[in-house]
Amino acid sequence: MKAMRQARRREFLKSSMTAAGLAWTARAISAQEAPAKPAGPPRIKFAAIGLDHGHITGQCRAVIRGGGELVSWYAKEDTDVVKSFMKSFPEVKRAKSEQEILDDKSIALVASAGIANERAPLGVRVMKAGKDYMSDKPGLTTLEQLAEVRKVQKETKRIYSIDYSERLENKASVAAGELVKAGAIGKVIQTLGTGPHKMTPQTRPSWFFKKEQYGGILTDIASHQFDQFLFFTGSTKAEVVASQVGNVHHPQYPELEDFGDVMLRGNGGAGYIRVDWFTPESFPVFGDGRLTILGTDGFIEIRKNIDIGGRERGSHLFLVDKKGTRYIDTNNQELPYGRLLVDDVLNRTETAMPQEHCLLAMELAVKAEKNAQRINLTL
Amino acid sequence: MKAMRQARRREFLKSSMTAAGLAWTARAISAQEAPAKPAGPPRIKFAAIGLDHGHITGQCRAVIRGGGELVSWYAKEDTDVVKSFMKSFPEVKRAKSEQEILDDKSIALVASAGIANERAPLGVRVMKAGKDYMSDKPGLTTLEQLAEVRKVQKETKRIYSIDYSERLENKASVAAGELVKAGAIGKVIQTLGTGPHKMTPQTRPSWFFKKEQYGGILTDIASHQFDQFLFFTGSTKAEVVASQVGNVHHPQYPELEDFGDVMLRGNGGAGYIRVDWFTPESFPVFGDGRLTILGTDGFIEIRKNIDIGGRERGSHLFLVDKKGTRYIDTNNQELPYGRLLVDDVLNRTETAMPQEHCLLAMELAVKAEKNAQRINLTL
Repeated sequence: MKAMRQARRREFLKSSMTAAGLAWTARAISAQEAPAKPAGPPRIKFAAIGLDHGHITGQCRAVIRGGGELVSWYAKEDTDVVKSFMKSFPEVKRAKSEQEILDDKSIALVASAGIANERAPLGVRVMKAGKDYMSDKPGLTTLEQLAEVRKVQKETKRIYSIDYSERLENKASVAAGELVKAGAIGKVIQTLGTGPHKMTPQTRPSWFFKKEQYGGILTDIASHQFDQFLFFTGSTKAEVVASQVGNVHHPQYPELEDFGDVMLRGNGGAGYIRVDWFTPESFPVFGDGRLTILGTDGFIEIRKNIDIGGRERGSHLFLVDKKGTRYIDTNNQELPYGRLLVDDVLNRTETAMPQEHCLLAMELAVKAEKNAQRINLTL
Repeated sequence: MKAMRQARRREFLKSSMTAAGLAWTARAISAQEAPAKPAGPPRIKFAAIGLDHGHITGQCRAVIRGGGELVSWYAKEDTDVVKSFMKSFPEVKRAKSEQEILDDKSIALVASAGIANERAPLGVRVMKAGKDYMSDKPGLTTLEQLAEVRKVQKETKRIYSIDYSERLENKASVAAGELVKAGAIGKVIQTLGTGPHKMTPQTRPSWFFKKEQYGGILTDIASHQFDQFLFFTGSTKAEVVASQVGNVHHPQYPELEDFGDVMLRGNGGAGYIRVDWFTPESFPVFGDGRLTILGTDGFIEIRKNIDIGGRERGSHLFLVDKKGTRYIDTNNQELPYGRLLVDDVLNRTETAMPQEHCLLAMELAVKAEKNAQRINLTL
């Protein structure tokens, strides 16, 4: 066991040295050595309520990797997502009601990927039941929901976490976080994030096309980029300089927004976000998500899911600094979100993500959506 | 001669077929077969006035490739640029004054890379002397200059061309223009252009650091991106949705702006532009200029000068459409700007660039600069 661990450590050290030099090696090693699957008895028990988006499987896997035991789940209807979820977790009990889970004192955390505008009301009920909460993004869809979530979170002191997976569950994003923290590109000036998406409308439930339910394109898929903007610029305050949304090419779905963009300014840097639903169906991944982090001493480009016309797989990181340009394969990077969230549940800390940050990202997303100018193109 | 031409045609056809398929082959061939150097007697005579930026060499080379004969030049001082220019064109006569060139009836066109805020007044004098004009970008720096240029251009019917070289003199940009025109990505929705730059302050003349003279970062280096936004979206009208500029890390140059960004909306699509002076000095090219063109059926990414951590050289084009993802090496693409400009001088046409487009790009740049919000970061 010790020998295996040392071998793994040596292997990681090697790739880490090639990859990113010395400054951030120590940090990366400690993250890397966390177990990929829970070792020993589970650290907490948790449940899932609301299985309306396939993201729920990834959310549960993150918590399991972090030491959680998925003990039950509840969903109203037997959707395709539910069927797929049951195949992933066949041994886990289906509860008869949401209340059954809320009443179960052994359950410390509830994960949800319900319909977007139902996530906050559920989270409020979960927190009032004395449990912590982890929502798929977007974690809420209106400023009224945000106010209620903030109020109940402060009253109950429960955790309201949102799984901004394009950062928390992407190895290149996590590696970029380490690099930026270590000062690899000096001080951050701006983030430029793009989140193009494949729509595959035949696989989407009806709520995907109803604005009240999905929340608008900036609230929904751009919420990832708001999180990244705040995280990488280190901003604790920020404003939306301008935002635009439009349905430029999908008249058959009148409430869909297929394009949106946002300009931002925070106390730690500027930001720009662009999202859309125009990725061709033939594209091998859900979208060519990118993030460029501009610093005073260089820049980092992340190609999260694919390197078009280039290298295999995802999680690509390119670092340009005063010493030159380096490609960094981040596939050995650990994803610590689940582990840190379980730590937080046990220790009442905020190591996975500060609570203020989590909700400020959504505040910006909802405000950008609400105040967006409308793009009307005659294509 | 005919055999050579056929061989070249075959070779090009081959690369063209690999590269971009059939739809745009015919157009590309006709461009490719234009001579790389003037063949036969020169089609026009031209001169250069104002050698304050090294771009003047590239501008003159473009016109020479297009069939122009550089017959004289004038500069007030013997700057480094002047010395370098004299090495490039040792056989060309140095005129004793600007007036000597303006009075020379044999000269049809004047090229200039003078100090940025002196380019428009010179252009007005050139047009009034009955000659056409080609300016380095930015082609003007204030709305007052723009009004005067528009007025005199209409009165004299002379050409006021601006060499937006990141499009006109970059092979990947020209190839992207062909692809978009051929419908390769459907209808264009947005352009996202970044123009990071290396500053190398010790090589910059004093006017580079004086805002009145260089015009501000959005007027200066972002003018390229305004041109690309209008060109690729096909917009003939557009507005600046929001713009920001800042000096976030160069207090020693108080009038320098080292960061700027702009959100745009035109009648043919949306746009975003980001420019900065933070590229490390060790970077092998002047900057990692990129352009992503989002269409209804796919997208094109251009890596103009370098493919970081990837392929050799510049002029890289990546096309994602319904059929898949293709990398396109555009190094065989002809650069037609100089040839078309000489055509226009001879035929009184606007094939190199519509006059309205040329000046609308500068109008947007100057307005974005003038109305920009100020970024004040405490880094």
